[in-house]
Amino acid sequence: MKNSQRSYWLGFDLGGTKLMATVFDRDFRIVASRRAKTKGAEGTAGVLERIQSTISEALGEAGLEPSCLAGIGVGCPGPLDLDRGVILHAPNLGWHNVPLKGTLEKKFKCPAVIANDVDAGTFGEYRFGAARGARCVLGVFPGTGIGGACIYEGKIIRGRTGSCMEIGHIRVQPEGRLCGCGQRGCLESVASRLAISAEAAAAVYRGEAPALRGLAGTDLAEIKSGTLAKAIKAGDLAIEIIVRNAARHLGSAVASVVNLLAPDVVVLGGGLVEALSDVLLGEVRTAVCGQAMKAFTKDIKIVAAELGDNATVMGAAALAAASEDAS
Amino acid sequence: MKNSQRSYWLGFDLGGTKLMATVFDRDFRIVASRRAKTKGAEGTAGVLERIQSTISEALGEAGLEPSCLAGIGVGCPGPLDLDRGVILHAPNLGWHNVPLKGTLEKKFKCPAVIANDVDAGTFGEYRFGAARGARCVLGVFPGTGIGGACIYEGKIIRGRTGSCMEIGHIRVQPEGRLCGCGQRGCLESVASRLAISAEAAAAVYRGEAPALRGLAGTDLAEIKSGTLAKAIKAGDLAIEIIVRNAARHLGSAVASVVNLLAPDVVVLGGGLVEALSDVLLGEVRTAVCGQAMKAFTKDIKIVAAELGDNATVMGAAALAAASEDAS
Repeated sequence: MKNSQRSYWLGFDLGGTKLMATVFDRDFRIVASRRAKTKGAEGTAGVLERIQSTISEALGEAGLEPSCLAGIGVGCPGPLDLDRGVILHAPNLGWHNVPLKGTLEKKFKCPAVIANDVDAGTFGEYRFGAARGARCVLGVFPGTGIGGACIYEGKIIRGRTGSCMEIGHIRVQPEGRLCGCGQRGCLESVASRLAISAEAAAAVYRGEAPALRGLAGTDLAEIKSGTLAKAIKAGDLAIEIIVRNAARHLGSAVASVVNLLAPDVVVLGGGLVEALSDVLLGEVRTAVCGQAMKAFTKDIKIVAAELGDNATVMGAAALAAASEDAS
Repeated sequence: MKNSQRSYWLGFDLGGTKLMATVFDRDFRIVASRRAKTKGAEGTAGVLERIQSTISEALGEAGLEPSCLAGIGVGCPGPLDLDRGVILHAPNLGWHNVPLKGTLEKKFKCPAVIANDVDAGTFGEYRFGAARGARCVLGVFPGTGIGGACIYEGKIIRGRTGSCMEIGHIRVQPEGRLCGCGQRGCLESVASRLAISAEAAAAVYRGEAPALRGLAGTDLAEIKSGTLAKAIKAGDLAIEIIVRNAARHLGSAVASVVNLLAPDVVVLGGGLVEALSDVLLGEVRTAVCGQAMKAFTKDIKIVAAELGDNATVMGAAALAAASEDAS
């Protein structure tokens, strides 16, 4: 009767473009996994429906009934009300005040937790990946914005109601570029994938990046992490300079955070880091070791994430389990 | 036989110029307190001796035997090895690798803990002062440098071996002034009491601060927090501008930390804040509320410390008690 015991965890990644549901056994081995498109434009009810059907399909693939689930963990875009389990606002999904925890608990009749996606991903790397078991982990995920997270003595550092660690909004240039948050000079405005792509598009327009011109033209939406990597490999020095400059700013901000939190491990993750890990890690290591205090850099590890797309589902499932342990 | 029970705590403040030993009862009411000069120039053995005699005198004043002590907590200048209880290096005292915890445990035959002085002071404000019971407290103490501390869910955020939260070494000006740490543009180099006093001395030299000229002349060592406050009150606009400008940088750095840690309470303390609390708190509040993310500033409290000179001894004693609870 093994399958009727509540001994499986479900980790869910609720992204702006794709959904992913993964079933784990009690040792957090992957049993089954399903993906689907998010299709946020189809409205809240449609996405909620698709979330539930993707979970059901993953359970089906694993040959399990919902009654086998010990709990569900979901990595979500924010801001969130963590305790109530409500997504307060998700611009990519057009969501306002969606009680995701309650919806899933009602449907699958097991406890559910929600977490910020970067928190979940960093927790995944802490439990199973590049930062396994570290006392203090700083996670940094440059993407459209720049997400940050800190796992301190096994727990996510959080705000009163939602997540915090907004490393993307550390000010790195007092009178810098305008950021999406309304401030000037935020790290995100100079070192996110989006900021890099915008600078790269301008370089193409100026005729400085012939390889990238061939690969993507001047369309920002076409200049993805992999495209940037290909352009650098093909000899676009202007693009390499843009990426290195952004990485130096990233490193400078990480140095400030290292001076505050003295992490044992800094994990850099996300598509940009996967595509350009040598360049990014090199520049960030140089900046951190050159700028942060010696006492904090002596034994620090600055490494690339290991779990890729699985980090969020693994972290979310582990958070569901940790939440059960605590209750 | 009350006095033979181990029901008293001793808090100690080991400063560069003065020592303070305070005896607390089990409810952390002050029973007795003694002060002495540090006299670091007289050597390690002499200071260790004076620390012990100051503690003995405080016990004597309270009419207690050492056997009444449940534990001793000491707020120290750093860097420290917290677990081993060793002061690794204290430039003001000329100390290297002094095993303070072991020395006190041997002498007074009770458990002792050491803590960074800013950590202890912030813990004091968290337990008994301006940040009583808050979920997450950020303490900021501008002095010769700028000390920072964070109490998160009742515990001090610390590094692997020593304290962290070096807010003074957040970079606020990419190509700024040289800092004592060897970097450029650290907060400390533009907003510490020392940085303010240096700018004020230059203003006196240029003839822009007649009141301060009368109070202190151009001697940096004479330009203390209270002197700055008096000069502003007497009409030295140049000095007020210098202080406000420094406070804006301080606020900007605090805004970055608020974006990371989302504290419920920010406590500003130390002599500079005591002397100039209106100016400093006003500028810091304006900067934080204008620059940090709305979600984190909505309910934030930015307040002056309440315990003054007692913060460190009270926090250190409470840490000794917390350490006993945990063991």
